[in-house]
Amino acid sequence: MSDLDDVFARLDERFEAHLELLIDYLRQPSISAQNVGMGEAARLAAGHLVDRLGMEVELIPTAGYPMVLGKSPRVDGPTVLVYGHYDVQPPEPVEAWTSPPFSPQVRDGRLYARGAGDNKGQHFAHILALEALRETHGRLPCNVLFLLEGEEEVGSPNLRPFLKTHADALGADLVVISDGPLHESGASVICFGNRGFLSFELHAKTARRDAHSGLFGGVMPNAAWALVHALASMRDRDGRLTVEGLLDGVEPPAPAERAAADIFPVDVEAVQRELGLTHLDQPKDRPFADRLMFHPTLTINGISGGYAGRGSKAVIPAQAIAKCDIRLVAGMEPEHVFACLERHVARHAEDVEVVRGQGTPVARTPLDHPWAGALREAIVRARGAEPLLQPMLGATLPTAAFQSVLGLPTFLVPFANADEANHAPDENLKIACFRDGIRTAAAIYVSIGAAGRVPDPVPQASRQV
Amino acid sequence: MSDLDDVFARLDERFEAHLELLIDYLRQPSISAQNVGMGEAARLAAGHLVDRLGMEVELIPTAGYPMVLGKSPRVDGPTVLVYGHYDVQPPEPVEAWTSPPFSPQVRDGRLYARGAGDNKGQHFAHILALEALRETHGRLPCNVLFLLEGEEEVGSPNLRPFLKTHADALGADLVVISDGPLHESGASVICFGNRGFLSFELHAKTARRDAHSGLFGGVMPNAAWALVHALASMRDRDGRLTVEGLLDGVEPPAPAERAAADIFPVDVEAVQRELGLTHLDQPKDRPFADRLMFHPTLTINGISGGYAGRGSKAVIPAQAIAKCDIRLVAGMEPEHVFACLERHVARHAEDVEVVRGQGTPVARTPLDHPWAGALREAIVRARGAEPLLQPMLGATLPTAAFQSVLGLPTFLVPFANADEANHAPDENLKIACFRDGIRTAAAIYVSIGAAGRVPDPVPQASRQV
Repeated sequence: MSDLDDVFARLDERFEAHLELLIDYLRQPSISAQNVGMGEAARLAAGHLVDRLGMEVELIPTAGYPMVLGKSPRVDGPTVLVYGHYDVQPPEPVEAWTSPPFSPQVRDGRLYARGAGDNKGQHFAHILALEALRETHGRLPCNVLFLLEGEEEVGSPNLRPFLKTHADALGADLVVISDGPLHESGASVICFGNRGFLSFELHAKTARRDAHSGLFGGVMPNAAWALVHALASMRDRDGRLTVEGLLDGVEPPAPAERAAADIFPVDVEAVQRELGLTHLDQPKDRPFADRLMFHPTLTINGISGGYAGRGSKAVIPAQAIAKCDIRLVAGMEPEHVFACLERHVARHAEDVEVVRGQGTPVARTPLDHPWAGALREAIVRARGAEPLLQPMLGATLPTAAFQSVLGLPTFLVPFANADEANHAPDENLKIACFRDGIRTAAAIYVSIGAAGRVPDPVPQASRQV
Repeated sequence: MSDLDDVFARLDERFEAHLELLIDYLRQPSISAQNVGMGEAARLAAGHLVDRLGMEVELIPTAGYPMVLGKSPRVDGPTVLVYGHYDVQPPEPVEAWTSPPFSPQVRDGRLYARGAGDNKGQHFAHILALEALRETHGRLPCNVLFLLEGEEEVGSPNLRPFLKTHADALGADLVVISDGPLHESGASVICFGNRGFLSFELHAKTARRDAHSGLFGGVMPNAAWALVHALASMRDRDGRLTVEGLLDGVEPPAPAERAAADIFPVDVEAVQRELGLTHLDQPKDRPFADRLMFHPTLTINGISGGYAGRGSKAVIPAQAIAKCDIRLVAGMEPEHVFACLERHVARHAEDVEVVRGQGTPVARTPLDHPWAGALREAIVRARGAEPLLQPMLGATLPTAAFQSVLGLPTFLVPFANADEANHAPDENLKIACFRDGIRTAAAIYVSIGAAGRVPDPVPQASRQV
């Protein structure tokens, strides 16, 4: 353990310099949605991997922006695949920023800049930790594959194809991703998975054209009614999903997941206050954590038909549309879910057609996975307290592809403050979070190296079902 | 009866001159929606009433365009209130007209011009018929109140207030309105009423703002779901209205209405073909005529919430809206119906509010009303065939106000061809329809005069319930 004490000491010594390096990195705009600075940012990131870590680095073209893949010199021990992204959100509205988004500024213990937390500050913490480990010990404690993507902020359209094509080069024992926030209390979190996703549309069409509600009301079927009844047949008033077969195979939480969910701290009143809710969604008796981790949702994202503008129009709509998404939980699979939707709509909704959108499988790494222990130990050493264990994230991450394509156990260990304001003006990273992030990353590599190669790093239960 | 033969002979003789007079009247634009030519048209109409009929005429201001009210010299006998409108629809798109909308042209037996059928050609037929009666017999066969409105094409916002304020001056025994088309077979129709109307909106609100469907899906109630379930609670999948109390008091058709509906000819296949329907609305086993005459509808005119544009957005809508109308049938009254809606929504739809729109009562004159016989007889004399009797029109007419405000039996006797293309380019009136319209109008006044004063022209059953 003295190994790590030396590293922590070195990091403390260098911290001001590290902050300056991050500031330099943040000065480089890299807005994927606007094609601004992407090549420069990729080369900058690649340069850090080569110069600081002595990695063999490739910039691998995709249909969009290139992947940056660095490979550390071979050592005896397990291999960690670290993922981050060098692109950032558009900074607009720029006038809402206190200091310009690409002129990083430190104020009141925070570093303000676009990308500070999401994600440059977080993956750069890994680079700095690895650099310190290399300098202190002359070598890294484990093998590292460092993958940086340039399209996370536009939905990672090329990540899955890339992982499929380069599966051989991406052989690893686990995936570690630092993105998103710490718990709002400031505690570290290990997140073991996330809900899957399936989007679809319902298209109702009852006639060739809209018609007058007096002249044809009672004669012409109304597409809005067809849509309303199709939807009402899929989720009842009490919030239960009623699409036949949809819930078949849903897996209940494992005991460790159940226990972790039960103690995961959430300030429900604060959530209700922030969103202005008078009550939570149906079913009303469900524990808060379960709502986001263990139950699928069927969300109407948007609905439209007929005339809903100013004033009124006495019309029967011939067409109506609903855009929906389903968040999948363990045991649900996009193809099967869509097949259930198709069958249900064909059986129960005359004049309605269902159209498939995007699908992303569930990601779920068991809480008792062998690597989880190494990560918990690392966090305790870096921060002096146990992390919170979050079985599932309610939202869907593109990084679920690591699990579903490569079959690797995947762990999300975020470093940013909960109020990082990512995707918003005045994005920031607390200086203390950046420091703790570098320490945590260093401890993680040491812990993984010390644990050695785990005999079966991919238990069956962690694969997609 | 020789009285009428003389009149018909005179009309035949004068027909070319009458057509020229109508053409002159149609040259005058009178577009209420665009405030074009309204004063000129009102004065032109008033001039005809004074010059041709010797009426005492007033132009009575309203909050919009003036009413033109003509009163014939007093004779011993019943009083007919004739209603028409001197305003026309906007002619746009003007480039779609074969000849300019305000340069009337006769082609293939039809007179093409904006307002030819709707409504100048029809009320002008009444003026010409009265003129011929006056010239032939030196006096009219009954008293006539001739009311021409300038705002029918913009929803008659001032008709009801006008009738209330001037009820004393509008004492009459019956109301006759010639507007709309003959049956598509060319047969004359007497229409005895129309469905009422109530519009309302449902506003669903579940939160202060939209939220991410992954981060909050299962936690935040969805306004679109609240709206869908509110709607689904109001009309079931089989098309039955399920708002509590809504159907209380609905009156079944009287035997005469039932019999008339059963024989009223409708080409259902043609309707389905024109609208592109694969089936009629629920409930599917209902006779076609009953759908428009004897059953209320609950139509969703428009629905909107969340994001329904291009692509997709993983959002939970905080607000959603539905705009609806109900077509009322005999025994339903807008105030009571709205009270039912309010109670139903309060009981069954959390997070949803109902907002009242416009209401118009049902109009219903009994088919066996004493004046109906006189009108049927007149049509047989003018056209040589029995008219079709239509108990109710599915759509709602502003002229229902004559019944609900003045308590008068109201009869719609249209003169225009079914393909008059009113509200569309190339609006036209068949020359033969114009000729038959003048003849029919003449026969109507003679019949009413011959019937004398009816002891109780407003039986209780014809009043609003």
